[in-house]
Amino acid sequence: MKLATLPNGTPDGQLVVVSKDGRQCASAVAIAPSLQAALEHWQDAEPALRALSAQLDAGSCPQAQAFDGRQALAPLPRAWQWLDGSAFQSHGDLMDVVFKIEKKNDQSRPLMYQGLSHQFIAPAADVPLPSADDFIDFEGEFGVITDAVPMGTTAAEARQHIRLVVLVNDWSLRRIAPVEMKTGFGWIHAKPACAMAPIAVTPDELDTGWRDARVQMRLEVDWNGQRFGAAHGGAMAFGFDELVAHAAYSRDLVAGTIIGSGTVSNPDYRTIGSSCIAERRAIETLDHGEPRTPYMAFGDRVRMQARLETGGDSPFGAIDQQVVQRKTR
Amino acid sequence: MKLATLPNGTPDGQLVVVSKDGRQCASAVAIAPSLQAALEHWQDAEPALRALSAQLDAGSCPQAQAFDGRQALAPLPRAWQWLDGSAFQSHGDLMDVVFKIEKKNDQSRPLMYQGLSHQFIAPAADVPLPSADDFIDFEGEFGVITDAVPMGTTAAEARQHIRLVVLVNDWSLRRIAPVEMKTGFGWIHAKPACAMAPIAVTPDELDTGWRDARVQMRLEVDWNGQRFGAAHGGAMAFGFDELVAHAAYSRDLVAGTIIGSGTVSNPDYRTIGSSCIAERRAIETLDHGEPRTPYMAFGDRVRMQARLETGGDSPFGAIDQQVVQRKTR
Repeated sequence: MKLATLPNGTPDGQLVVVSKDGRQCASAVAIAPSLQAALEHWQDAEPALRALSAQLDAGSCPQAQAFDGRQALAPLPRAWQWLDGSAFQSHGDLMDVVFKIEKKNDQSRPLMYQGLSHQFIAPAADVPLPSADDFIDFEGEFGVITDAVPMGTTAAEARQHIRLVVLVNDWSLRRIAPVEMKTGFGWIHAKPACAMAPIAVTPDELDTGWRDARVQMRLEVDWNGQRFGAAHGGAMAFGFDELVAHAAYSRDLVAGTIIGSGTVSNPDYRTIGSSCIAERRAIETLDHGEPRTPYMAFGDRVRMQARLETGGDSPFGAIDQQVVQRKTR
Repeated sequence: MKLATLPNGTPDGQLVVVSKDGRQCASAVAIAPSLQAALEHWQDAEPALRALSAQLDAGSCPQAQAFDGRQALAPLPRAWQWLDGSAFQSHGDLMDVVFKIEKKNDQSRPLMYQGLSHQFIAPAADVPLPSADDFIDFEGEFGVITDAVPMGTTAAEARQHIRLVVLVNDWSLRRIAPVEMKTGFGWIHAKPACAMAPIAVTPDELDTGWRDARVQMRLEVDWNGQRFGAAHGGAMAFGFDELVAHAAYSRDLVAGTIIGSGTVSNPDYRTIGSSCIAERRAIETLDHGEPRTPYMAFGDRVRMQARLETGGDSPFGAIDQQVVQRKTR
């Protein structure tokens, strides 16, 4: 099942069910006004949403309308909690080169930080940021959305709470990242609002693209129309089930919690490319002694999507955004 | 003006105006259903709330009812964003002793992390945590609640966005804090949900207790009925105006954002005491070579309130909570 959120003048937007081919949608407001509301009553909402989805795919849904992901909001335009992991080891290793930091991390514990969740930018909206001197970068990653997860939930139990899978661009300001990281407090300036691809999908919808609580798909990243990377989501050192359980050790997770994989990265990064610029700069530093690729300029575009290996379908739709200077007030 | 939130079966609760003496309240649902809703329309809501407040204090409010802070929820039972500073230098210095870390922080930048905001525990509710082996600690601090703050707001502009002042207990698990801090990612396990005193007050209500964008009051902390500390809120190295501006560098702040001062602490901690156990253990380590005060046990209580120096009034009411083992499921 595929879900999306259309603008309706409210902060949470209007929930729609999207057809399997991504071309049509149907309002789900009779079931739940918003995706957040559906997640709060998922046991009741899911069967009704699946019935509507089946009706839409059968061509027998009277309120069917054309769906254009570029007009959609993020599936959750705001969320109560965004906990972003860093589960790809090759990403972590390369970032230590960029930031000139040796992270002291017990490898048995997932890395995770709490980020800005009150705004997820729409997939085709401009992204306003204060200055290109902050070294603007993208970070392509997968994420999951949970229903309510009680404190102390195990990884095995957590699988039942993973309701939706999403594609996220975690916008990052690299000049500030190591400055904030060295304090031990995590990031405020270096992690502005993320963007999200238009369609949230249930894990079963991904078929073989979801296995071992990991997204088994390549994340295709294009920067100004040039392929930048196509790393595979299966290489996570911890599955999303383990990330959810880690997050719930000393807190209840509210319905609508989004958990991120961290930047998708593979050890064969020299051939497959990267999902962020900083990684490429680290590889250049390793290979040539210095970085050669600049960070983003205002006006640059980044496009992200992920395709199923069976058939080439792009279940999440695309993030396709331009980074712009914020208006001075 | 004093505001509070009573339970009504919804996650955001019911907004009430509280009388100056803290003994009566009146429903404000005709103005805004919840404090979050009022903050989203503060320009309209504030005059109406102040009129109701004046009516209540004049004894001419027909819907006046008795107010008991122990029955209240947190003023914001959930918030879209909780950004906690660490603006008291003596606290930071002592924590480096506890954690055996030397933070690499540029002193011109405030320290700040993003914490769990989807739940602020009611002032008299039990606090469930997984294990006393995690070294359970309290952290008494002041906080402010803002309306919507645009990206790029300066400290001078930020003062106009500080709408309410609150008292927070930032529950902390000290065994895990340095483990998470060494990763640079900030805290997930070490920072479970915070609690909040029942009454949120407008800065003007504090009179001389609010100056230089700092709370000029002592935060009285009692642990199991014994005075533990009474540090003064005026010693912040950065005012709340500077903390709000720092937070808004690369993000818009949503209405209802809560910004914390960090643990209230003064350089004369040997006489005035502390607002968390870890600090006292650091002082003991400095004085005796080892910590002597244990962390909290399940069943322990902590009480926090702050009094105005003019008159002894306790404008926020009290946090008075017991820490308990979470129920196994």
